[in-house]
This record gives sequence, structure tokens and C-alpha cells, in this order.
Amino acid sequence: MQLRLAIAGIGNNVSALVQGIHYYRRLLSNGCDPASLPGIRKFRIGEYSVLDIEFVAGFDVDVGKIGLPIEKAILSLPNNYPDLCLDIPPSNCIIREGVWMSNGVIAGRQAVVEELRNARAEVLLYSLPTGLQDMADAYAECALDADTCFVNCTPEVVARNPALLKKFQQRNLCVVGDDLASQMGASVLHRKIIDLLLDRGLRLDSTYQVNLGGNEDFKNLRVRGLTKELSKKNALARVGLDLARVHVIPSGGVVASLADRKVAYLNVAARGWANTPVSIDVKLEVQDSSNAAGVIIDLVRLAAAAKGGGAPGFCSAAADLLKSPPAAVLPTENAGP
Amino acid sequence: MQLRLAIAGIGNNVSALVQGIHYYRRLLSNGCDPASLPGIRKFRIGEYSVLDIEFVAGFDVDVGKIGLPIEKAILSLPNNYPDLCLDIPPSNCIIREGVWMSNGVIAGRQAVVEELRNARAEVLLYSLPTGLQDMADAYAECALDADTCFVNCTPEVVARNPALLKKFQQRNLCVVGDDLASQMGASVLHRKIIDLLLDRGLRLDSTYQVNLGGNEDFKNLRVRGLTKELSKKNALARVGLDLARVHVIPSGGVVASLADRKVAYLNVAARGWANTPVSIDVKLEVQDSSNAAGVIIDLVRLAAAAKGGGAPGFCSAAADLLKSPPAAVLPTENAGP
Amino acid sequence: MQLRLAIAGIGNNVSALVQGIHYYRRLLSNGCDPASLPGIRKFRIGEYSVLDIEFVAGFDVDVGKIGLPIEKAILSLPNNYPDLCLDIPPSNCIIREGVWMSNGVIAGRQAVVEELRNARAEVLLYSLPTGLQDMADAYAECALDADTCFVNCTPEVVARNPALLKKFQQRNLCVVGDDLASQMGASVLHRKIIDLLLDRGLRLDSTYQVNLGGNEDFKNLRVRGLTKELSKKNALARVGLDLARVHVIPSGGVVASLADRKVAYLNVAARGWANTPVSIDVKLEVQDSSNAAGVIIDLVRLAAAAKGGGAPGFCSAAADLLKSPPAAVLPTENAGP
Amino acid sequence: MQLRLAIAGIGNNVSALVQGIHYYRRLLSNGCDPASLPGIRKFRIGEYSVLDIEFVAGFDVDVGKIGLPIEKAILSLPNNYPDLCLDIPPSNCIIREGVWMSNGVIAGRQAVVEELRNARAEVLLYSLPTGLQDMADAYAECALDADTCFVNCTPEVVARNPALLKKFQQRNLCVVGDDLASQMGASVLHRKIIDLLLDRGLRLDSTYQVNLGGNEDFKNLRVRGLTKELSKKNALARVGLDLARVHVIPSGGVVASLADRKVAYLNVAARGWANTPVSIDVKLEVQDSSNAAGVIIDLVRLAAAAKGGGAPGFCSAAADLLKSPPAAVLPTENAGP
Repeated sequence: MQLRLAIAGIGNNVSALVQGIHYYRRLLSNGCDPASLPGIRKFRIGEYSVLDIEFVAGFDVDVGKIGLPIEKAILSLPNNYPDLCLDIPPSNCIIREGVWMSNGVIAGRQAVVEELRNARAEVLLYSLPTGLQDMADAYAECALDADTCFVNCTPEVVARNPALLKKFQQRNLCVVGDDLASQMGASVLHRKIIDLLLDRGLRLDSTYQVNLGGNEDFKNLRVRGLTKELSKKNALARVGLDLARVHVIPSGGVVASLADRKVAYLNVAARGWANTPVSIDVKLEVQDSSNAAGVIIDLVRLAAAAKGGGAPGFCSAAADLLKSPPAAVLPTENAGP
Repeated sequence: MQLRLAIAGIGNNVSALVQGIHYYRRLLSNGCDPASLPGIRKFRIGEYSVLDIEFVAGFDVDVGKIGLPIEKAILSLPNNYPDLCLDIPPSNCIIREGVWMSNGVIAGRQAVVEELRNARAEVLLYSLPTGLQDMADAYAECALDADTCFVNCTPEVVARNPALLKKFQQRNLCVVGDDLASQMGASVLHRKIIDLLLDRGLRLDSTYQVNLGGNEDFKNLRVRGLTKELSKKNALARVGLDLARVHVIPSGGVVASLADRKVAYLNVAARGWANTPVSIDVKLEVQDSSNAAGVIIDLVRLAAAAKGGGAPGFCSAAADLLKSPPAAVLPTENAGP
Repeated sequence: MQLRLAIAGIGNNVSALVQGIHYYRRLLSNGCDPASLPGIRKFRIGEYSVLDIEFVAGFDVDVGKIGLPIEKAILSLPNNYPDLCLDIPPSNCIIREGVWMSNGVIAGRQAVVEELRNARAEVLLYSLPTGLQDMADAYAECALDADTCFVNCTPEVVARNPALLKKFQQRNLCVVGDDLASQMGASVLHRKIIDLLLDRGLRLDSTYQVNLGGNEDFKNLRVRGLTKELSKKNALARVGLDLARVHVIPSGGVVASLADRKVAYLNVAARGWANTPVSIDVKLEVQDSSNAAGVIIDLVRLAAAAKGGGAPGFCSAAADLLKSPPAAVLPTENAGP
Repeated sequence: MQLRLAIAGIGNNVSALVQGIHYYRRLLSNGCDPASLPGIRKFRIGEYSVLDIEFVAGFDVDVGKIGLPIEKAILSLPNNYPDLCLDIPPSNCIIREGVWMSNGVIAGRQAVVEELRNARAEVLLYSLPTGLQDMADAYAECALDADTCFVNCTPEVVARNPALLKKFQQRNLCVVGDDLASQMGASVLHRKIIDLLLDRGLRLDSTYQVNLGGNEDFKNLRVRGLTKELSKKNALARVGLDLARVHVIPSGGVVASLADRKVAYLNVAARGWANTPVSIDVKLEVQDSSNAAGVIIDLVRLAAAAKGGGAPGFCSAAADLLKSPPAAVLPTENAGP
């Protein structure tokens, strides 16, 4: 069954999402077994396979992207996710101007609502740069007006806003958020290692994690790193762990040559039997936006499936894939980027 | 309650065990909280705390160790576990000549049995170098004759020998084995990382693990590495993992300067969303024999507690701490050195 | 021959310098061969051995340090160089209040000059935190007034100030500066690796260096990193190297648990024969302030020896140990921290 | 000017050599600047550019390679250098059966000599697997009989055999050998780091190097590693370095998935000022056979140029590119694989 997806914010994550789906389409048309596709947790969620995503609307404020079909807009600078050279067939999904701030007032909402309605979008994916709470609020209202479910990839507060959540519920719509947990990131690996040590009776002396990258996200993080640092430290919290011994640096700096690749260095110093030292050094290198797209593909399908299944409001099956789900819904595991 | 422990094979593992217990004794007498001792999984198992181990007999065939009290014998070459300089008070536990091979015949068993009886040993810990099945058999028979439980740290077949196991059971004795799983080793870390990748939908391209060390064990492993390689690869086995993509080198070579330290290098190459590469490089450095002693301390207490609790035969609570428990007892997790 | 040394700024570098000299004194009194002391480039420079440094005066503005003898002041917070527990014998070198800024005017100069004269200081070592050009100027004038040579460890402009340099020359005094090059730092290692690649015909694709530490210096660097980044990139400059491919992050962030240790991660991606990839990953861990003290010990002796040898002005023999010597004196090799 | 090259042993090194030359040909025909080709030390040596190598004869004993043109033979198993997919135009250089051992007697020499003469080969490159001294001798005699210069890539003794060397000299032929030094290998990097430390006055505590690979060479090395270990340790020798503190493991084991890639792990533990520890960890990953081909391209041109220049015998300009040149010719730097 097709899933009609609209997207606000045509950045690297969307580039990874669009190209990835076409990559898998090609693999399958070449006879690959759906069960053995690399990088996919579940080929099918509810009635939706990975290939069933149909891009029906897109919004951005970058004049270099507006007016382009989505398969071209995703390759426009400053996007620097690699061009996988997939010869994606031309689509009818033309990027439109999204909402914007004009003299302190949100503008352009009506056009977005109409576009969502005309496109009969079932889910709106919110994927703007981090830190724009007003925009997140505005797009959530657009989704409500257009009768569209909402997925929030960012740390902005949407699903955790009880008033908003209630509105989605009342209109029989689903909302998924906030802040996606990376498919395979430094935080989850760091946590697994710390858990292992503590479970085995070792004592943690100290540990640090520093992240480097070259995309727009890293430039932001170098400046507003404190919130992110706390969020990432919380992702490591557990009984028996003194967080004062944990140092997390979300962005150690921008390394332009990394582009959309991300490198994390982890160090763990611990004590084993008879206080003898144990040390672990890790270098993790990943494609930053693939790490997001590999989770987004599940989030949007979970939202649509929940709505189809008559379960409006927050989609609790998504909790494990989020860093900050609504408070009542505690994930069994918090996994960070 | 005191646990009267006898030991066959006074190598690095025993050095770590004896020194570690004295180290913790000192910490506690300095007012440390038993719950926060570094390197201990459980301070108390059954009625036995970590401090309740009393060394009552020791056996070796090295003339440099025979006749010495245990606290001195553990510091004799070729042992190279560090001297923790703990000023261990003199003990009455004098190392005696153990069983040996004379013209293809086992000799010295009777003296060992008598020593075990005189010492009223409750548990005999078997900790000879790997590869001496005849010795393992001989010491197991000694334990049976002396009415002593048996803990086998090595890969030799003892607990997995149904005939032997039955004898221990019939005499209301416990046996724990075979082959201890390290407290914090390369295999368990490697496995956690592979599990994480596969659980998240990534595909493993290839992975390797190479171990370096400087103690006697590493010299043996460089030669007879194949069995160990298979054992370590099995410790990584799981559904969805093609073992042909896994390369494990138990001993990449001897680095004398490492002494009893062990270094493992791990590399994992995988594929995430849209087939983009993920790579993980790990360096793990541990004190090899502390890794054993931190598990031995639990194994001997589990054996004594099981006997005290009237549960003779294999002590199933120990299965998770062993690499090769009897076939009927499948560990929930196999963790290697 | 004794070298009467005064010091402005009693931070970690001075802690390393004072403790190190006492450490070597102890080694030698235990019979060590002067030629085999660890961490010393030259045991003797001119007439001065490493042990000939006599601390005769010290200045700081930290009330926690003023009034203490130097061997105690060096252990006061926020200094966090390790206490090497050397039982340094009590000295008569009491830390005095140095120059300070009062309503935009430098104060306290006259007292400093008198202290330098009373102490008959031959060399004044300037070792304040980076960025205080006014203080560097003030102490240089004090040195001139007190007839004392001057060594500037910091990036402030002193030896490169032609007017100042001329004054030192006219009074038959020596000046050494500016900005010491670490004894064994990330920049020099990075440079050696890049040189090796280019000399062998490989092409550099990209390279980065990120530094982590836990002392006061690192907190400063995270903020004012740009100048330092340029300085460190310049240290790597050479014919055939496109600096746009080089990314240097002087402080990726503060990791408090590192204290005065410094960690640098280096990555080099290059191309060899047939464009096949070559990659190099390095982790370097050093004691940050030992890296400075191991060079300071040479700089102060070079200054005194040059004056004794009748060669006033900039001491050209020090050029290789400095990052920014006067322009006319090009070092054969620029080595950074 | 064309250089007519014959080759004995069509392994990975030759695959890298042949494909690399075609790769550079393509770059140049696309307008690349000869001065900026990646992986080339000198585009022109004497009258020969990198593109001037013409393959005129090839010898092997593998029936899977004999009869194939060289551009196909290089891609036959067990060769596992990557296929660079260059669409090399068909050549007339058909691989012929080389010399072989028949009942302890060398056979096939006459056919090789005739083929060399018919092909008017100027240089014969000897590139068989390590350890076949009889073969090296036989091919050297073939070269003498056919009036061809000789380049020996392997550790076999040819240039160091005074009798052989004299024969080449008498016939106005050049010989280059023995054992090429890699273009960018673990030994040279290891040496640079050790040199840096010692030059700066640090003391080496201990250092190790372990190499991993997946080609045929690594399977050999795991077994006959001792000679190689000594050779590699010698490459690190210098005044002030205690070789007992140096551990080199030429092959830590075979990792099939690496194929022709090679990974080296280096660790250096040293002491700086005040005996504070310095540690360096390096991971180097290279294309093993590109490392050879990037040097072979120079060796064969040096041999031809020396002959053309009327300088028969050992070509001393090649000494720096060799691990074991004739004793009289000491390289200024010994660089290992």
C-alpha cells in the first residue's frame, strides 16, 4: 500500500531517504531478497514496505531548492550527502516555498495547508534544522489543518506538547516524536560498552566521547553544544553510573572534508579485578544522514500504520526509535545519534 | 563463612586471585563500602564474601615454586602478573609437588589426595596450562577421592565428561567447568558490537579480531591457535551472522613488553541505510589474569554454595561464566576471553 | 654554574619544570648516568646542566599562590599537573605579587623590578596564560630595568617586537621567543607524517587533527581557537601541500578527567600508486606541561649561555625550539604543540 | 624513450604495476598535469617517463596464467589486487612458462633466454614469491645470457652475490637489488616516529608493530616470520635504540577479507620530561602491492638509465629504495615494507 509522504526541510536526511529508497528499489528489481537488504531493520511495517513511500509534497525556504523536483533538490548545496548516481526517474514532487518568519510573524501557512490537501499527504515529516521551535509549531498546525499525521525528527517539542498531542488525537491523527535516535550512532555504542563494563563488575574511572563532522549540523552543534551534550549524557545514564565521570562533546569541531560523514572517538578507562586498569578506545565512522534516514523510514510507516489501525495520538511503537518521546512513554532504551 | 580452597597450578591467574583478595581486604579495613569495590561482580555469593576464601593447599611441578608459601610462589617466574606490593601476611599454605607424568604414567596422586584431606579443602581449583587433559583427569580423580568439589578454568574436558560428572554427583560434590569466560574480554565486546549492528538492521561486511600478549599463555596460543580460533568464533555465533565474514586471531604474536597485559584490536566493516559504509575500530587493553581471577572468585564460591545447598553435580548458576559448560546446560550468553 | 631564574606566572608549566629538575636530581644522586635521563634533549648546554637552575624569584596574581614558597605554589589549584611526590626541600623562593591591571593601567612594576634586582635574577621566564600582550610588555620592561634576560613561552609578541629586541641588545641582554614548540606534540608528529607521505610521492586527500585536554589552557582554546588553528596549520605548511585539505582543531573540547594530559587524534587520507587509498590514524597522549618544561629547560639555558658568550639580542640557537622566532631568523623546522 | 620490460612472476605486484601505468596513461590523456599524478615519486627518471614501460615478455609456472596476455593474467587467482576496470587494450605480451624445478634440477632456462632475446627485453624484473633462491639464481643467469639488466624485488641474494654482480658488470649490464623498500609501509612510519622521539630527548619504554593482510604473502609470513622479523627490526635500528624494547610481528595472521590490503598497528610507549608517559597508537592501512609497484616503477627505470648512462653493475641511485643493497652501498635510510 502506498504511503503519501510530504516533507518540510529538504536537507541531507531527506537526500538519504529519497536516494536510499531508490537504491533498494533497484536492488529488488535485480532480484535481491527483501530479507537481506543492507541497512534496513524491517522491510515491512504494517502494510507498508520500504518501497511504498511516495513523495507527494516538499517544502523549503532555500530559493535554490524551490521549484525543483525533489530528486534534484536533494542534491543542491549546502546538502552534501553523496550523490549515489541512481538515475532516479523524474517525479512530480516539486519543492514549494514553506512557512517562513516575516517581521516576527509566521507566514505562508495557508499555502502549505493547501499543498498538503491537494497532494492528499498522509504524513508530514518535519526535518528542518535544529532549534526552530516556531517552525515546528507552525508545521504541526498545518498538519492538523490538512488532516495529516506528523513525524518530528528534531529535538523541538511537538509530541511532548500535551495540547498539540491532544489536538492530533482528537482529529484521529498520529504524531511521532521528538528527536530520532540514530540507527547506529556513538551514543548507543558508548552505552553498550558502559553497560557491559558495569554489568561485569568493573568500575568506570572516566570516559569521553568526541564527535567530528562536516555537514551543516556540525556547524550548529559547535555553538549550541550544551543542550546536545546534556541530551547525549542522559542517553548514557543508568543506575550505578556517576555522570560526572562522563564527558560528551557533541561537536569537537567542523572537518569540512568529512562532508556528511561523522567520526566519533570514544575512550573508556575502567578498573577490573584487583583494581587493574582496563582501557577501551573506539573510532566509529558513519554516514550521518543515513543514520537518520534508516530510522525515518520506520517512523513514517509507524505513524501511517497506527492511524490506519485506529490508534490516534502518539504512536507508542515508535518510542524506542526516539530520544525524547512524551514523558508518559518511556522507551526501553534511549539511543542517541 | 570460610571457604577452604586448594589450587593446582600456581600461575598468573592464581597470583591475581591471591593478591586481589588481599587488596580488597585492605580496602575494606580502610573503610571502603563493600558495594563499591572495583572489579567485583558480587561481593557475596551465598554465604561467602570475597574475603572468605582461605588458601589451604597448593600444587605445582615447578621446583622454583614448591616449598614456598603461596604468597611468595605466585611471584616466581615465569609468572609476570604485577606485584601489587601488598605485604601479604605469611600464610601456612606451602606449595607441594603436584601430580606429574613419569614414563607415560601419572604419578604423585596419592600425596595430593592426602594433602587435600589434611587441609580439609572444600574446593580444588584446576588452573594448569591449557592442553594437559591427562592432568585435568588426574586432579579430578584426586578431588573425588578427597571429597572435594572441583572447578576447571581450562578448556580441558571435565564437567563435559558425563562419567566424571556422574561420579561427582554420586558423592554429593559439585563440579564447575569447563573453560572460564573472561570478566571483560575481546570476545564479549566483539559480540556486543556485532549484536548491536545486526539488531539495528546493518549488514556485516567483514570483521576481525587480533590479540597480543606477553605471558606464557600467548606463547602457547601462537602455535595451537586453531582450536582457540574456532572457540572464539563460536562465541560470536548468532542467527544472521555469516561466520565466513569473521576472522579471529587468538594470538597475533608475543609482545614480551606487554607481560600479563593483553591487547586486542577489533575492526568491523558494515553497511547501513542505502549501503553506506559504517566502520568501527577498537583497541582493548586489559590485565589478562585479572580477567580470569574476577571470574574464578565467583566460580569457586558458586561450587561451594551449591554443595552447601545440596545441589551436587554441575553448578548451573555458573553456566554464564563458562565458555564450555556441559551440553545440556546452555548459557544464555557465551563470552570468551 | 648556577643559573638564577625568576618566573612570572606559576602555572602547570612551572610545576613541571620545578618538579622535573628535582626528579632528575634524585635520579643522579641515585647513581643514574646523566646521558640516559628520560625526557632530556641535552643534559648540559654551555656551562649549565639541567640541575643548575636555581629558582630565585616568582610572580603571580593568584592570592592562593602569593606568599607560598615555589615548591608549594606549583601544587595550588587550578594547577593540575600531577604531584610527583618528590619531597622537594623547602626553598627561599617565595611567590610575590606580580604586575596587574588597575583601571586600565599596569601596576606593580616597580616591586617586580626590585625583587628581580634583589634576587640577582639572570633570566626572567614569562609564562602567563596566553593572550595577555600588555602583561608580556610590562614584564619585558621589568627585565630590561632589572638587567635580566627574557624568555617568552607564549604567543605574545616580544622577541618579534623590533623596538623591544633592540633595547635588550643595547643593554647586552638576551631575549628568547616567541611561543615555544612542544617537545613532542601533535603538530610535529603530524608534520613528520605528512612530510613522509609527500616525500614518497603520495597525494594527500585530506587530514585532520583534533586535540583534547583538561587544563586551563584548553578551556581558553575552545573559545579563541582561530588564531591557534592558523598557527598550527602554518606549522604544517610546506611546498606541495594544499592547506585547504588540512583541518586542525586546537581544542575539540574540555575533558576534565584528562587534567594536564593531552590527547590528539590525527587522521590522514592519501593516495598511493594507481590512486589506491592509504589511511593513517593516530592517537597521541602526552603530559601537556611536561611537553613545555622539556623545552623551557633548554630556552632558559640558551638565553643565559648566549649572554655569557657575549651574544646579546635574540638567541638564534633557540630558533628551532620556537614557533614564532623573529622574522629574520627562520627555523629549519617549525614544530607546534 | 620506450623501456622494454620482461617479468618473471605475474603476481599482485605486477598487477599493480600494469594497471597503474594504464591508470596514469588515462589520467594524462584526460589532460592531467604529469607533476600532480597521485602515487608517483618522479614522473621522469632519465629518459623514461612512467608511461614508457612496455611489457614485452612475462613468465610464470601457473597454468592458469600461461598463454594469457599479461593484462588478463594479472587478474587470475590467487592474485587479489583489485581489478581497477581500466579496459586495458589487448597486448601481444603472452605469459610463457618460466623456469621450474624438475627432480631437483632447474629446467626451462633455454626457452626463457630465447624469449628474452626475441622480445629484445632491456630489463628483467624478478618478482617470484619470497624464498626461492634457486629461481632467483636461474633467472639472473637467464638475464646474463640474454643481455638483459636485472631487478630483484625479493629478499633473495642476487645483487649481494659478488660473483653474480661481477658478471653483470663485465657484460655492461646493471643489476638492482635486493628486496624493495615499500613506498609507504609500516617500517618507515615506525622508524620516523621512533626517530622523532629519540631526537627530542624522550626515552623509549617499548614499542610493537603487528601486520595483518590477506594475500599469499601473508600466509607465507605467518610461518617463516623470524627472518622477516629480524629484517624489519633492523630497519628500525639506530644509535640510542635498544632493540630489545622493539617487537615486530611481520604477520600477525591472515585476514582473508583484507585481500591485498595490509593493516599495521603500531604502539609506542615512551617517557618525556620528568618521566611522564607518552603514548602513540597508529593504525596504517595500505594497498600492499601498490606499495611495491610504486617502487618497482623507479627501480626498473633506474636500471635502464644506468645502463644507458654507461654505469654497469649495481645501480647505486637505487640504494635508498632497497632493504638490502650490496654491503658496500649503504643506503642513507633503510625503509621496510
